[in-house]
Amino acid sequence: MSEYLHKDSIGPVEYHDQKLPLGPDGFILESGKSLPEVSLRYEAYGKLNADKSNAIWICSPLTADAHVAGFYKPDDKHVGWWDALIGKGKAVDTDKFYVVCSNVLGGCKGSTGPASIDPRTGKPYGSSFPTITIGDMVHAQKLLADALGIQSFYCVIGGSMGGFQAMKWAIYYPEIIDRVILIATSPGFSAQALGFEIVGRDVITQDPNYNNGDYYDKQIPAIGLANARKLAHITYLSAKGMETRFTRSDIRIEHPEKFYSGSSLETYLDHQGTKFVERFDANSYLHIAHATDTFDLATEYGSLEKAFQNVQSTFLNVNLSSDWLFPPNESRKITEALLNDGKVVTSLELDTNFGHDGFLIECGALGMAVSRFLGGQIGNAKSTGTPAFHSEKDISIIDSLIPAKARILDLGAGDGLLIDSLWQKKKVTGVGVEKNFANILGCIERDVPVIEKKLNLEALQSFADNSFDYAVFNRTLPEVRNQRLMLREIMRIAKHAIITFPNFGSWEMRWALCYHGRMPKSPEFPYEWYETPNIHCFTYRDFVRLAEAEHLEIEKIVTVNDHTLSQLLTKIGFVNLGAERVIAMVKRKE
Amino acid sequence: MSEYLHKDSIGPVEYHDQKLPLGPDGFILESGKSLPEVSLRYEAYGKLNADKSNAIWICSPLTADAHVAGFYKPDDKHVGWWDALIGKGKAVDTDKFYVVCSNVLGGCKGSTGPASIDPRTGKPYGSSFPTITIGDMVHAQKLLADALGIQSFYCVIGGSMGGFQAMKWAIYYPEIIDRVILIATSPGFSAQALGFEIVGRDVITQDPNYNNGDYYDKQIPAIGLANARKLAHITYLSAKGMETRFTRSDIRIEHPEKFYSGSSLETYLDHQGTKFVERFDANSYLHIAHATDTFDLATEYGSLEKAFQNVQSTFLNVNLSSDWLFPPNESRKITEALLNDGKVVTSLELDTNFGHDGFLIECGALGMAVSRFLGGQIGNAKSTGTPAFHSEKDISIIDSLIPAKARILDLGAGDGLLIDSLWQKKKVTGVGVEKNFANILGCIERDVPVIEKKLNLEALQSFADNSFDYAVFNRTLPEVRNQRLMLREIMRIAKHAIITFPNFGSWEMRWALCYHGRMPKSPEFPYEWYETPNIHCFTYRDFVRLAEAEHLEIEKIVTVNDHTLSQLLTKIGFVNLGAERVIAMVKRKE
Repeated sequence: MSEYLHKDSIGPVEYHDQKLPLGPDGFILESGKSLPEVSLRYEAYGKLNADKSNAIWICSPLTADAHVAGFYKPDDKHVGWWDALIGKGKAVDTDKFYVVCSNVLGGCKGSTGPASIDPRTGKPYGSSFPTITIGDMVHAQKLLADALGIQSFYCVIGGSMGGFQAMKWAIYYPEIIDRVILIATSPGFSAQALGFEIVGRDVITQDPNYNNGDYYDKQIPAIGLANARKLAHITYLSAKGMETRFTRSDIRIEHPEKFYSGSSLETYLDHQGTKFVERFDANSYLHIAHATDTFDLATEYGSLEKAFQNVQSTFLNVNLSSDWLFPPNESRKITEALLNDGKVVTSLELDTNFGHDGFLIECGALGMAVSRFLGGQIGNAKSTGTPAFHSEKDISIIDSLIPAKARILDLGAGDGLLIDSLWQKKKVTGVGVEKNFANILGCIERDVPVIEKKLNLEALQSFADNSFDYAVFNRTLPEVRNQRLMLREIMRIAKHAIITFPNFGSWEMRWALCYHGRMPKSPEFPYEWYETPNIHCFTYRDFVRLAEAEHLEIEKIVTVNDHTLSQLLTKIGFVNLGAERVIAMVKRKE
Repeated sequence: MSEYLHKDSIGPVEYHDQKLPLGPDGFILESGKSLPEVSLRYEAYGKLNADKSNAIWICSPLTADAHVAGFYKPDDKHVGWWDALIGKGKAVDTDKFYVVCSNVLGGCKGSTGPASIDPRTGKPYGSSFPTITIGDMVHAQKLLADALGIQSFYCVIGGSMGGFQAMKWAIYYPEIIDRVILIATSPGFSAQALGFEIVGRDVITQDPNYNNGDYYDKQIPAIGLANARKLAHITYLSAKGMETRFTRSDIRIEHPEKFYSGSSLETYLDHQGTKFVERFDANSYLHIAHATDTFDLATEYGSLEKAFQNVQSTFLNVNLSSDWLFPPNESRKITEALLNDGKVVTSLELDTNFGHDGFLIECGALGMAVSRFLGGQIGNAKSTGTPAFHSEKDISIIDSLIPAKARILDLGAGDGLLIDSLWQKKKVTGVGVEKNFANILGCIERDVPVIEKKLNLEALQSFADNSFDYAVFNRTLPEVRNQRLMLREIMRIAKHAIITFPNFGSWEMRWALCYHGRMPKSPEFPYEWYETPNIHCFTYRDFVRLAEAEHLEIEKIVTVNDHTLSQLLTKIGFVNLGAERVIAMVKRKE
C-alpha cells in the first residue's frame, strides 16, 4: 500500500518550525488581543528561484496540517493530504515551483494553538486562548513567508477553509500575488452550513469534560468531539456518494445492542469520530471552526464587490457539483463579484459524486485545470478546438467591428481563439462562456478567462448591467431557447451585440426543403435534424424583424457567401436568398 | 393570532383514548416480543356514513400527535398540525369524510410508549420498552380502526414517517384500502439521512443523564435531546429556505460569550431544542426514530416491486423539490416500483423552498391535488386543457389503432383526455407523463394516472422494459432533443409507438419558407420561431427515413389534410407535400 502511494510522491519530506519575529507587543490579532509568541510549522518543497518568482503558497483546510505532500518515513501509511496534486511533474510541479504549506495559527499540528504552552504561565492556554480569525491566520503566514525570503507569489492556492485564507491573501496583499486558485470554497458559510457548525460546537462545549476548554490535565471531551466530527463528516460527503458506499442489508429489526445495528455506516462514522479524537484537539477545532464561522466577506466589507475591489490577481475558481457544504451557488458568488469588479476570473464547475471531499479526491480534472492555470500541460483532454466554421474571415469581420481595448463577453467561446486573437491584435479584454470542459482547458491554456456555464437565460442573469462593451454570439444564438428574451438580456449586459448565425433562408436551404421534402443540411447546417444543436433556426429576414420588434438598431449586417450562386444572388439584391451566414451588430436604439 | 388561526378551522375538537382489545399474550410485536397492554390516543372528525365508505386515516409523522386539526380550547395558540389540509370544505373535507388520526405506538402523546407505566411493574418501561417497527404502529392502528367500526378506508394519508405507515397499511391490508396518499416520503431513509439519525441517536444516548433510558425519576437527558433536535431540525429545512430566513449581520469577530454570537440562527436552533425537550420524551424519540431507521421496504421484501406486488390501492405520491431528508429521487423509487408492478399511481413534484417541512406548509398546490384525488374541487388552477389540435379526428384515428384493454403510456398527456376517452370506450388503461401542474390536476380529476416529468431521455429511463403495449407521442416528439435515442428508448418500453407530428414538409411550410424567406407558421406550427416548443422539426419523409434507419416497421401511417390543396396533393400521390400532420404507428422489426 505505502509503496504504491509513495511511487508518484515527491519523496521523503520534513517539517520545520518557524518562530515568527514579533515586536514587543507580540502578535496582534484582528480582535485587538495579542499572543506573546507565535510559531508556525511548515513544509517546503522545490527551490525558490533566483528572481524569487516561483513561490506557491498552499492554504490548508480546517483540520489539515502542513504535511501536504510526500512522506516522512518509508513505512508511512499515508502521504500528504494533497499529494495527488503536488509533486514532481504534478499539477503543482515542485520541479518548477517552490511550494510552501503551514499548519494554521490556532492549530494543533505544530503551530501555536490553544494546547500550546502560554509562556506567561507555563501552562497550556486552554480557555485563555483568544478567538482568532482567518485574517489572523494569513497575517501569521505572511510573517513566515517573509522569514523564508518570499517577496511575491506566483500563486496562492486554497480549498475549503484554505480558500477563505487565499481570498484574504489576495485582499490584504494585492500587489504581490499573481494568481489565486480557489477550490470548493465560498465567501462565507451558508446558513445551513452554519447551522451544522452551531450544533457541532454545542455538542463539544456541552460535553461535561469540556470544562470551558481547560481539560488538558483531565479527561478530554472525547464524546463531544467525536460526535461533532461524525456530524461534520457527513457534510463532507454527498448523498449520492454515501448511497453508493453504504449498504443497508445489515440493518435488522431487533438488534443485539439496542438502537445499534452495527451497520457499515455506524461503524464508519464511529471510526471517523475516534480517529479524529486521536489526532485533533477540541479547543483547536472550536477555535478554527469559529474563525471559519465568522468569515463573511460580504458583511465584513459591505459587499463582495467591495471586498474584491483592490485585488489584482488572476483567479481560478472551481466548485464541485455535489458539494453542499460549499455549494456551487455560493462559490459562484465569488466569480460574479470578481466579474462585476472587472477582475480576471475563470470559473469551473467540476462534476463529482464525492461532495466537498471531492477537492481532495477528484484531482484528475482539477489537476488538468490547475496545471494549465500554472502554465503546465498535465493531462491530455482534447479540446474540440475552434469550430471549423469559425473561420479567419469571420474573425476578421468581427475584428473590424470591435475597437481596441473593448471589453467583450464571448457567449460560446470554444477554446478562446476569438478573445485571444483580439487581445493580441488590439488588447481587447474579455470573458468567455463555455460548457465544454476540454474547450475550457483550451481557454485556460491561452490565458483567456472563461466561465463554465450552459448558455441560457439564467446564465446571463448573473452578469451586471452594462458590464461589457460587446457581447458575441458566435453561432450560438440558434442553440438557445427564447431568442427574444436572450436578446433583451444581452442588451442589458452589453452596449453592443455581435451575432453570427447560419441563414435558414438561403437558397440552399429553401431548395433542399422544397425539392427533397426533408430537413435541409448544408455546410452551414451540417447536422441531422434529430441531433442538431440548433433548436431555433431562423433566417436573415427573421432576425431583422426580431431586431426591429425589439427596438434594436442594426449597426451593421454582413453576409458571408462562399458559393458562386450565393454571391450572384446577393449581387442582384436577394440578400436573404444569398446569405449563407450572417454577421450582425446591434445596439439599443437611443 | 389564535382567532385568525381558528377562523378556518374545524373548531373545537377532543381526543379519546382507546385501550386496544388484546388476547392473553398481549400485543405481539414484529420482533416476537410483546406488550401486555396498548392504548392509543386518537382524534376523529366528521361522521362515518351509513355504508361505512368514507373513512380517511391520517398517519402521523415522527414527532406529531393525534391532534391533526382544530383546537381544544378557544385560547389555544396553535391548531392541529395539518389543520391547513383537514377541515370543513378543505382538501380532506370533514363534511364528507370521517377522518381519524392517532398518536403512534411508542409515542409520548397519550399512546403507550416507553414513558407509560408497565402494568407488570407499576413503573415506567424505560429501558425495558421493546424496540418497535412501523409495522407494529400500523397493526395497533388497525385494532383501533376495528374498535371504531371502520371496515374499509376511502383513503390512507401519510407524510414523512406517516408515509412509511401508509405504505405498510397498503401492503398489510390491500383489500380494504381504496386510495393512498404519500407525501414527502421514501421507501426508507437514504444513507445520508441515516447518518444524521445515527449522530442524533448517539448524542442522546451518550448524554450522561440518559442512563440507558431509565431516567424517569432523575434528570432527563435534556442536553442530548436538544442537540439531537437541533440537528434534525436543520434537515427539515432547505438550504435556500434557511438562507432567506437567517441574516449573518449579527455575527461579530469577538463575542461576549466565547464562540456564541447570539445570532438569530443560534437563538432559533436553541429555541427548537428547548421547545422539543419540553414536549417530547427522549425514549419515545429514540424508539420511533429507530422504527423509521429500520424501515426499508426493499431489504425487507427483497425489492420494492415485491413489496408492492399485492397492493390494490390507487396511489398519489407527492415529493417536494427542496426536501433533502426524503429527497425527490428517493420518493420516485416508490412511483417506479408501483409502475413496474402495473399498479395505479399518480406522481407529483411540488416546488417549494421549505424543504421537508414543506409538506406541513405548502398546502396550496398540495391541497388542490389531494382534494381532486379525493373527488373534491379545491382551488381553481386552470388546466391548459386539451390542446386545440388534439382533435376528435386524431383521437378517433388513435382509437382505431389501439385494441381494447391495452396498456398505454401517453407522453405529454395534457389533461388526460386521450386515456380517459379510451378507458371509457374500451377499458384501455394507461399512464400519462406531463409537466404542467394545472394539466396534471385535470388528469387527477379525470382519475387518469399521471407522472409529473419533463419529457426527455432521462424521464424514459425509469420505465421498465416492455411495460406498456403502446406509447403515444401526441405532438410531443418535435419538442424533445435527440429523437433517434428517444425512439430507441420508447421501443424498449412499449411494443408499439404511436407518433403524431406536424409535417414540416407540407406544401404550406415549403411555400412559406421559399416565398417569404421566413421561418414558416401555419395552423400546425402556430408559434414564432423564437418561442416554439418544437425544437427539432421534421418532415413526413424525415420520419420515414429515421424509422427505416432504426429498423422499425411502420405498421400504419396516416396523414391528416384539412386544406383542399393538401387533399388534392395527397390524392395525386404527393404525400409529404399534402400531409399537414402525420399519425404513424411503428414497432420493432421481428
